[in-house]
Amino acid sequence: MSESQGRAVTIAAIAAEAGVSLPTVSRVLNGRSDVAPHTRERVEALLREHGYQRRGGRPRERARLVDLVFNDLDSPWALEIIRGVEDAAHAEGVGTVVSAIHRRVSATRAWLENLAARASDGVILVTSELDPVLASELRGLQVPAVVIDPAGVPSLDVPTVGATDWAGGLSATDHLTGLGHRRIGFVGGPAPLWSSRARMDGYRAGLGAVDVAVDPDLVVEGDFGYRSGSESGERLLALPDRPTAVFAANDQMALGVYEAARRRGLRVPEDLSVVGFDDLPQAQWSSPPLTTVHQPLAQMGTLAARTVLRMVRGEPVETPRIELATRLVVRDSTAPPAG
Amino acid sequence: MSESQGRAVTIAAIAAEAGVSLPTVSRVLNGRSDVAPHTRERVEALLREHGYQRRGGRPRERARLVDLVFNDLDSPWALEIIRGVEDAAHAEGVGTVVSAIHRRVSATRAWLENLAARASDGVILVTSELDPVLASELRGLQVPAVVIDPAGVPSLDVPTVGATDWAGGLSATDHLTGLGHRRIGFVGGPAPLWSSRARMDGYRAGLGAVDVAVDPDLVVEGDFGYRSGSESGERLLALPDRPTAVFAANDQMALGVYEAARRRGLRVPEDLSVVGFDDLPQAQWSSPPLTTVHQPLAQMGTLAARTVLRMVRGEPVETPRIELATRLVVRDSTAPPAG
Repeated sequence: MSESQGRAVTIAAIAAEAGVSLPTVSRVLNGRSDVAPHTRERVEALLREHGYQRRGGRPRERARLVDLVFNDLDSPWALEIIRGVEDAAHAEGVGTVVSAIHRRVSATRAWLENLAARASDGVILVTSELDPVLASELRGLQVPAVVIDPAGVPSLDVPTVGATDWAGGLSATDHLTGLGHRRIGFVGGPAPLWSSRARMDGYRAGLGAVDVAVDPDLVVEGDFGYRSGSESGERLLALPDRPTAVFAANDQMALGVYEAARRRGLRVPEDLSVVGFDDLPQAQWSSPPLTTVHQPLAQMGTLAARTVLRMVRGEPVETPRIELATRLVVRDSTAPPAG
Repeated sequence: MSESQGRAVTIAAIAAEAGVSLPTVSRVLNGRSDVAPHTRERVEALLREHGYQRRGGRPRERARLVDLVFNDLDSPWALEIIRGVEDAAHAEGVGTVVSAIHRRVSATRAWLENLAARASDGVILVTSELDPVLASELRGLQVPAVVIDPAGVPSLDVPTVGATDWAGGLSATDHLTGLGHRRIGFVGGPAPLWSSRARMDGYRAGLGAVDVAVDPDLVVEGDFGYRSGSESGERLLALPDRPTAVFAANDQMALGVYEAARRRGLRVPEDLSVVGFDDLPQAQWSSPPLTTVHQPLAQMGTLAARTVLRMVRGEPVETPRIELATRLVVRDSTAPPAG
């Protein structure tokens, strides 16, 4: 039946028969130079022997699967993306294979082996780098890829889908300065992440717009986890001249700031305003409901799925980088500063 | 290559060629009587013509995929299950296809068509009924199934994985009576759900153990959503003789009760103790952190995946119904009643 599946299995079979790894076979297929000559010869011989068809042969039959790959499945954030991808894929009669690779080479390898054995039409990677090795292996398997919320500065080799992080950071800060706040703490995400840096620059720009200089004491780096939010909140609230508002670069850290406030006997928003980022479902379920920057995570998933399925059909992708708009959602965690 | 995939595609192809639906072909394969005789003849003829292999033929090659099917992907609860299934499947070199069928026949049909076209080794259904039609179609596709947290009383035809809901409800209530509470409100899940009824019976048993009769005014039925929790909380807190504690049958409803308390100016736990059920990650992220009954959702997913993969290998399943233990996790939302 499916030629593509037959081909994929053949790659795995050839790797096994040649006694080399799957990536080695894919490097040979890609004409890469980092393969020992005798290995290349053995693999090339097996490829010929098994009649492996390179790109340009008959049109492939589709596997009717897309792969959605996360580093971890530990944040409600991931579920929003899954929901969006599943929705778009389902609508096209395509199944969504969800994997977590835990930033481990071994897990990535296991996922690739599984993918090669069963075939996939396309891959969506979430918040990670499409490193050159992985990119080359996917090319070897002839599987197009899209990256959601890339970890680093997106390259133009692969389409990426993100959100307007900078504008979101600006709108959160504008909202607080509009209420009259001037001492505004910032709890940022991990500095290496592209999205973290953009949100922080939005915060800086928002302060700049009302001629407030950034006070380094009011800026704390978190890791997007709840605990880092509560610890950063403790630190900010322990300052002699504590902030009257805190903008946290994601909702989980904002909820950590709530808890830091509660432990000090401070009420949100009467004593401290808090703004988050993401607008996960639990932002509405917090007490008080959280003012936050809505990031259209499900739509980002949907768009990534549609883009990769378009690539599968050989249709052109209009732009390599799409940023969906964020928007501020005002709920009950923000108010003018007391006194 | 894969005989199973060849066979699965043939079923879809036969359905198309015969101009009937996939389930009709599967009904024919299962020897069901609810197929018109001329349809059966046409399908049988095509099955013979294409050399379709029924069960008992050569051993199947594996698709290296399991299907995990939810009604909806709208609760953080789902992510915990996905995490557990993915972990176990990944460890066996199997991919996890995640689908949402939204309780709609059309979506279920689309999922089944996709499954038939690409093949799957096994299916895990979450909180739903394996209705006779679906069960028969999966048998027709020769795909074993396991149900997590079945909606109704589990049948013995298919293995199910759940948690000790009754014992969990009892431990939550015991904890509150042990602190001295006697007026304890209960916000239940949807009554038709097996797990909802078991949690409520645990609540009744806990009150019975301290000779307190169930006061019908203190029992409200929710739908497991946040809003139903806040509305039920409002109702309970508006009672002339309001409860000093509320046990909600899931965490999301417990967080709704928090919000109802905040709106009335009541503090948790000083003025109202609250206990949840599930122990989702956000139970720890609530303010105050929520006392709740831990349900090992990820482990339930892992166990379901291992069970279905055991069935795929033709190994016996020891028991058709497994209940994993729940346990109370005491955090900061419970205290003795005031005064």
